[in-house]
Amino acid sequence: MIVVMKSGATEEQIKEVENKLHELGFRTQVIHGTDKRVIGAIGDKRHLNLRFIELLPGVERAIPILRPFKLASREARPENTIVNIDGVTIGGPEITVIAGPCAVESREQLLETARAIKSMGCKILRGGAFKPRTSPYSFQGLEEEGLRLLAEAKEDTGLKIVTEVLDAQDVELVSSYTDIMQVGARNMQNFKLLKALGRLGKPVVLKRGLSATVEEWLMAAEYIMVEGNPNVILCERGIRTFEPYTRNTLDLSAVALVKQLSHLPVIVDPSHGTGRRDLVSPMAKAAVVAGADGLLIEAHIRPDEALSDGAQSLDMEGLARVLSELEDVARVAGRTFTGTGALNRRVPSS
Amino acid sequence: MIVVMKSGATEEQIKEVENKLHELGFRTQVIHGTDKRVIGAIGDKRHLNLRFIELLPGVERAIPILRPFKLASREARPENTIVNIDGVTIGGPEITVIAGPCAVESREQLLETARAIKSMGCKILRGGAFKPRTSPYSFQGLEEEGLRLLAEAKEDTGLKIVTEVLDAQDVELVSSYTDIMQVGARNMQNFKLLKALGRLGKPVVLKRGLSATVEEWLMAAEYIMVEGNPNVILCERGIRTFEPYTRNTLDLSAVALVKQLSHLPVIVDPSHGTGRRDLVSPMAKAAVVAGADGLLIEAHIRPDEALSDGAQSLDMEGLARVLSELEDVARVAGRTFTGTGALNRRVPSS
Amino acid sequence: MIVVMKSGATEEQIKEVENKLHELGFRTQVIHGTDKRVIGAIGDKRHLNLRFIELLPGVERAIPILRPFKLASREARPENTIVNIDGVTIGGPEITVIAGPCAVESREQLLETARAIKSMGCKILRGGAFKPRTSPYSFQGLEEEGLRLLAEAKEDTGLKIVTEVLDAQDVELVSSYTDIMQVGARNMQNFKLLKALGRLGKPVVLKRGLSATVEEWLMAAEYIMVEGNPNVILCERGIRTFEPYTRNTLDLSAVALVKQLSHLPVIVDPSHGTGRRDLVSPMAKAAVVAGADGLLIEAHIRPDEALSDGAQSLDMEGLARVLSELEDVARVAGRTFTGTGALNRRVPSS
Amino acid sequence: MIVVMKSGATEEQIKEVENKLHELGFRTQVIHGTDKRVIGAIGDKRHLNLRFIELLPGVERAIPILRPFKLASREARPENTIVNIDGVTIGGPEITVIAGPCAVESREQLLETARAIKSMGCKILRGGAFKPRTSPYSFQGLEEEGLRLLAEAKEDTGLKIVTEVLDAQDVELVSSYTDIMQVGARNMQNFKLLKALGRLGKPVVLKRGLSATVEEWLMAAEYIMVEGNPNVILCERGIRTFEPYTRNTLDLSAVALVKQLSHLPVIVDPSHGTGRRDLVSPMAKAAVVAGADGLLIEAHIRPDEALSDGAQSLDMEGLARVLSELEDVARVAGRTFTGTGALNRRVPSS
Repeated sequence: MIVVMKSGATEEQIKEVENKLHELGFRTQVIHGTDKRVIGAIGDKRHLNLRFIELLPGVERAIPILRPFKLASREARPENTIVNIDGVTIGGPEITVIAGPCAVESREQLLETARAIKSMGCKILRGGAFKPRTSPYSFQGLEEEGLRLLAEAKEDTGLKIVTEVLDAQDVELVSSYTDIMQVGARNMQNFKLLKALGRLGKPVVLKRGLSATVEEWLMAAEYIMVEGNPNVILCERGIRTFEPYTRNTLDLSAVALVKQLSHLPVIVDPSHGTGRRDLVSPMAKAAVVAGADGLLIEAHIRPDEALSDGAQSLDMEGLARVLSELEDVARVAGRTFTGTGALNRRVPSS
Repeated sequence: MIVVMKSGATEEQIKEVENKLHELGFRTQVIHGTDKRVIGAIGDKRHLNLRFIELLPGVERAIPILRPFKLASREARPENTIVNIDGVTIGGPEITVIAGPCAVESREQLLETARAIKSMGCKILRGGAFKPRTSPYSFQGLEEEGLRLLAEAKEDTGLKIVTEVLDAQDVELVSSYTDIMQVGARNMQNFKLLKALGRLGKPVVLKRGLSATVEEWLMAAEYIMVEGNPNVILCERGIRTFEPYTRNTLDLSAVALVKQLSHLPVIVDPSHGTGRRDLVSPMAKAAVVAGADGLLIEAHIRPDEALSDGAQSLDMEGLARVLSELEDVARVAGRTFTGTGALNRRVPSS
Repeated sequence: MIVVMKSGATEEQIKEVENKLHELGFRTQVIHGTDKRVIGAIGDKRHLNLRFIELLPGVERAIPILRPFKLASREARPENTIVNIDGVTIGGPEITVIAGPCAVESREQLLETARAIKSMGCKILRGGAFKPRTSPYSFQGLEEEGLRLLAEAKEDTGLKIVTEVLDAQDVELVSSYTDIMQVGARNMQNFKLLKALGRLGKPVVLKRGLSATVEEWLMAAEYIMVEGNPNVILCERGIRTFEPYTRNTLDLSAVALVKQLSHLPVIVDPSHGTGRRDLVSPMAKAAVVAGADGLLIEAHIRPDEALSDGAQSLDMEGLARVLSELEDVARVAGRTFTGTGALNRRVPSS
Repeated sequence: MIVVMKSGATEEQIKEVENKLHELGFRTQVIHGTDKRVIGAIGDKRHLNLRFIELLPGVERAIPILRPFKLASREARPENTIVNIDGVTIGGPEITVIAGPCAVESREQLLETARAIKSMGCKILRGGAFKPRTSPYSFQGLEEEGLRLLAEAKEDTGLKIVTEVLDAQDVELVSSYTDIMQVGARNMQNFKLLKALGRLGKPVVLKRGLSATVEEWLMAAEYIMVEGNPNVILCERGIRTFEPYTRNTLDLSAVALVKQLSHLPVIVDPSHGTGRRDLVSPMAKAAVVAGADGLLIEAHIRPDEALSDGAQSLDMEGLARVLSELEDVARVAGRTFTGTGALNRRVPSS
C-alpha cells in the first residue's frame, strides 16, 4: 500500500502513520517528493480493510498496490482453466453453446426446444425454474416442477443442463437436478449463496452484476473458489448504462480484459445483454472474436408465446442461422465449433 | 399499453396485433397517425410481461401506460405511511436518526457507542452482525454474537435496533434479536429475502441497489408489501456513477422524487452514500431539506480502529456536531428533531 | 508518480524504467515489496502525460500522486473566491439567485419576467439567446436580437445578466451585451471557448458536463484561469445516469466535494438538474444546505407557452414560493438571502 | 405524441389539453383506459419541443411516437450510404482501416508511420494537429504545422488523411489540408461546428460523445446532414461507465444497433475505446464482426516516446499483427480487407 500525505503534513503525522502501519505488521519506507511525502507500506495484508488509514491526521489517500483477487488471477494460474462437465468442456479450444428458453414453461416446450438445440450443435440446455423477476406480479417460474422437466430433457437428449439458483436455501434442491448452477446478475454479491456454491463444488455460471466492476466480478468468483470450488464460469450479460434503446449494454471489452486478468473461462449472453432479438447474432459472433469461450443464448420454440423475455429470444430458425455461421467465426478466433453449418456441409450432394 | 407500429406496417399486421391483444383480454383502439399507426390496448394487465408484443411482425415498440408499482404508490395511499417501532416513528413530523458502527466489533465498543448516541437524541442503534463484504478475505461480522450484543445494547439504553439480514435463511434468527430488519443494497433484488420479510411483518429498511432505478426500488418494496407487510422504510445510500473521488454518488433528487411517487418513508445514509467522513455533515442536512424522514449515520467511538468502513465513520464528536445543527435544519424543512442542540440550549446559563 | 512493476519484473526492466524517468527529469526511489517492486518518481511533472510509462516492459501501472489542477485547488488558495459583478457577489456570505427563462422569446416575456424576479430578491437575470439544442429542428434562440433584449432588461431593472456563449467566435459579440458568460454542459470541454473566455476576463458560469468527473470540471476551470481569468463560477446541473424518471440526476454531493477541493464558488441549477418542476423547490433548498453559493432557476411567466424546456420552468408564483423559504434555509446554512420572505415581513401590519 | 393523463384527471383538463394540441396543429383522439385517459395527438411536429405539455393540469407524461432523426434514419434511406473520398470508400463491402498517431509530433515520425501503414493495407492516415486535452498543461498539438505535415505525408504516400477540427473558426483552415474532418467526442454536440461542417460538405468522422445516447449521436449527424452534407461517418469510441480498469467501455452493441437504425457508415476506434494497447486487437476484430465498416487505430512508430496517449498506441509490429488477421475476420463478416496478410501470402515461396 502507498499512503500519500497531504502537502502540509507534519513530521509527527508521518510518524503516527508509520507507527500505525508497523502495528498492523507492515514495514515502511518514506519517499520525499517535491511537494508531498509518500509512505510505502510493505507486506501482503490483502485481508485488511485499510480505508481507515485515510482517517489519520495528515493523510490524503491510501492506494492499494496488490490486486484484491488471488485465486482468480492469472498470476496465480497462468494457463486457462477448463471446466469439465462430464465430458463437455468450457474454456478449452471449443466454443461451447448453451441455449434454451428464459423460463421452463411446459414439458412440450422444453423437450421440443432441447431436441432442436441438440441437433444444432449445442451441448448444454438452459432454462429457468426459479425466476428472479422485477415485479412480484410476474411469472416466478415452475420451481421444482421446472427442475424435473429439465432433468427429463437431459435424460431424453443427453444435453447437460444449467439452471439458476436464487438462494442458499435452494442449493441442495437445485443441485440434485442440474449439472451447472447459475448465479444471476442480481445475486452476484449474494455472498451466502456464493459460499454455499463454493462448498458444493459443482460448476457455477457466475453472471456479472448489472453495474459490477470487473474487479468485483472476480472477487465474487474468489468467494466461490476460496471455499474449494475452482469450477467458475464467468458470464458477461450486459451492464447498465444511460442508453434506452437497448435493455443493457453488452460489454465485450470486459471479456477481452478478463481473459487477461484471469484464467477462468468467460461466456457471453447476448440475449439479456442487449434485450433485442435483432442484435443477438452480431453480438454473439463478436463475442467469440473478442475471446469468449462460449455463448448463452435464449431460444424459444414460439417466442411470441414466451412467459418471460420473449422479446430477446430467438426462434429455432434464428438460432440455427446464428450457429450456422459460428464454425467460421470460431475458426477466425483460433477456436472450433461443430454445429449446424458443419452438419449441413457433410450432407452428400447427390 | 400503447403499441406503436412500424411505418410500413400492413393492415394484416395491425389485425394480428389486435387479435393477440384481444386474446390477452385487452380491448383495442387504433389511432391513425400521419406516419404510423398506434394501437391503444385497454385493460389492467400489469402482471403480464408484454415485451413479446414487440416481436409481432410490424411492431416497432410497446409502451406501458400504467406504472408497475401499486401498493407502494401514492395513488394507492395519498397520506404518508408512518412506521411505528414500539413508539419510535419514521415518516411522521419528527426526523428520526439512526446511528452506530458499520459493524458490531465488541461489547465495549457497542455499549459505549449506544450510550453516546442516545444522549445526542438518536432513537435507533445500527450495527452490522452479518457483513456483506466485497472480499472473502475481509471481516465478515460477529454473526449471532453480534446480534446478542445489539440486544444487550438495546436492553441497556432503550434504543431500538436495526441490523442487516443477508439471506432468507437468517430471517428468523436475526428477527429474534432486532426491531428492524435491514436489506442491503446488494440484496435489493434478493426476491426470496424480500418475500420472507414480507411474511415476517417486522419493519424493514430497504436500501436502494447500487444502480437501481427508482421504479425498481419501489418494485422491491412492492415485493415486501404484497406479502402483507406495509412497514417498509426506503433508504437512499448512493448510486454508482463514473466519479472516482467519492465511493458512491448520493442521490438526493431520488428522495424528493420518491416522496412524490410513494407514501413510504425515506431515510438517507450519507456515510455509505459518499464514503467520505468530510461530506457526511453537509449531505445529512441537505437530505433532510430535500424531504428525507430520517438519517442513517455511521459513527464509531474510534473510527481509526474500525474493522469496517472507518473512512466514512464519524467519531462521537463529529456526530454531535451534525446533530447539534439538525434541530434548525429540521425546522426549516417543516419537521422536528430534538437532540444535542436542544439539550445544550436548555442548560441553565448560571 | 508511483510506478508499480509486475510480479515477475526483472532487475533490467526496473533499471530501464528508472532510466526513462531520469531522462524525463525525475529522481527515483525503489520500494521492495513482498510481491512487487514499486518505483517512486520524484518531481512535479504535471504537464507530462505519463501514461506511456505503462507501456515499458514489466510495468503494471503508473499512479499519479499530484492532483492535476493547481490554480483551481484549495491548496493554491485556502480562502473562498468571491466573484464580484459590479457589486453583486457570488461566493460571499449571501446566496445569489439567478433566475429567468430558458430562452429569450420576446421583449414582453423577458421584461415582465425580469421585473418579477427583481421584486423577489434575485440579482441576476438569465436567458438564452443562443440555444444548444439536441435537434436541429428545435428553436435555436433569437441570437443577437435576444442579446439586445437582455441588455434592455438590464437597463430597465438594474439586474445583472448572464447568457450562454456557444462558440469562441461569438465571445466578443456576447460579451458586448452580457455581464457573465455562461458555458453550457455540452461545451465544458470546448477548449477553444474556454481559452477565449480566459483571455476575456469576464466572469464565467462553467456548467459541469453531463458525465464529467469533478476533476475534469476543475480542469476546465483551470483552462480559463491559466489564461488569467480567476472569475470562474462552477455550476452543477445534473449528471447523466440510468434513471429515466428524471432528465438528469442532480449531484449535490459534488457541491460539497468541490467546496473542499477548490476555492471557487459553486452554484446549482435544480431546473435542468432534475428536469421536473415539482423537484425544483426541494432540490434548490437542499443545494444551499449542501454548500452552494447560489442558484440558477428557470422561471417563465407562462411556462406552458415556453419555446424551450417549459417542463422544468417554474411560473412566477412557484418561484416566489421557493424564494420565500430561502431566507430561512440560507440562515441554517450560515448564509444570508434577502428576498420575498423578508420583504413580506417588513410590510407594516397596519 | 401520446399524452397520458393522471388517474384523477377531469373532463375539463382533458379538454384543455386537446385544445392546446389543436392550437399546435394536431388532431386528437382520446382512449378511455380502465384507469387512465390517453390522448393521441396526430401530426408530425418533430420540430416542436413538447415537454411543456407535461405541465398542463392533469397531465402525467407525454410520449413522443416519432423518432427525432429523419435524414439519418434507415426509413429515410434503406440502402447503406457509402462515403467516397476520391476513390477510397467507407460503408461499402471493404473494411477501411484508418491508422496513425494520436498527435502529429514531427515530420520524421509522421512520414515513417504513413509509409508503414500504407504498406499494410491502410487507406487513410490519421493524426491530430489540434488536440483536445483535459489539462491545459498538456501538449496541445502542432496546429497548422501539423496540418502541413499531414498534407506532406498524403503527397508522399497517396494516403487520404483525416484530422480533428476543434472549432467552427478552424473549419476553413483544417479543410484546406485534409480529406476528412473529424469531430471529437467532446464536440459531438458543438452545434456551431456541426453546422459549419454541414455547409462545408466534406466527409466528416463524427465521434460519439462520452455519454451520448445513440439517439443523440444520430441527431448530431442530422445537424450535419440537414445543412446538405450527407457524408457522415459515425465513429464509436467508447462510453463512460463505472469501470476503472479501462479508460472507456467500447460499446460494440451500439455499432450493431446503429447499423439497423441508420444507413450511415460506422467505424470503431478500439484504441481510445479501451485505452489499453493489449485490448486493441480483440476489440478491433470483434468490431468488424459486429458490423463496423472500418477501424480507426492509433499506431506510433515508437509508442513509448509518444507525446499523447502512448499507452493505447500499437507499434508498427502490433498493427501489422492485427491487420494480418483482418482479411479472415472481414470475410467471416461478409466483407473484404486486403492488407498485410494477403500480401504475405502472395510472396512466392521459392
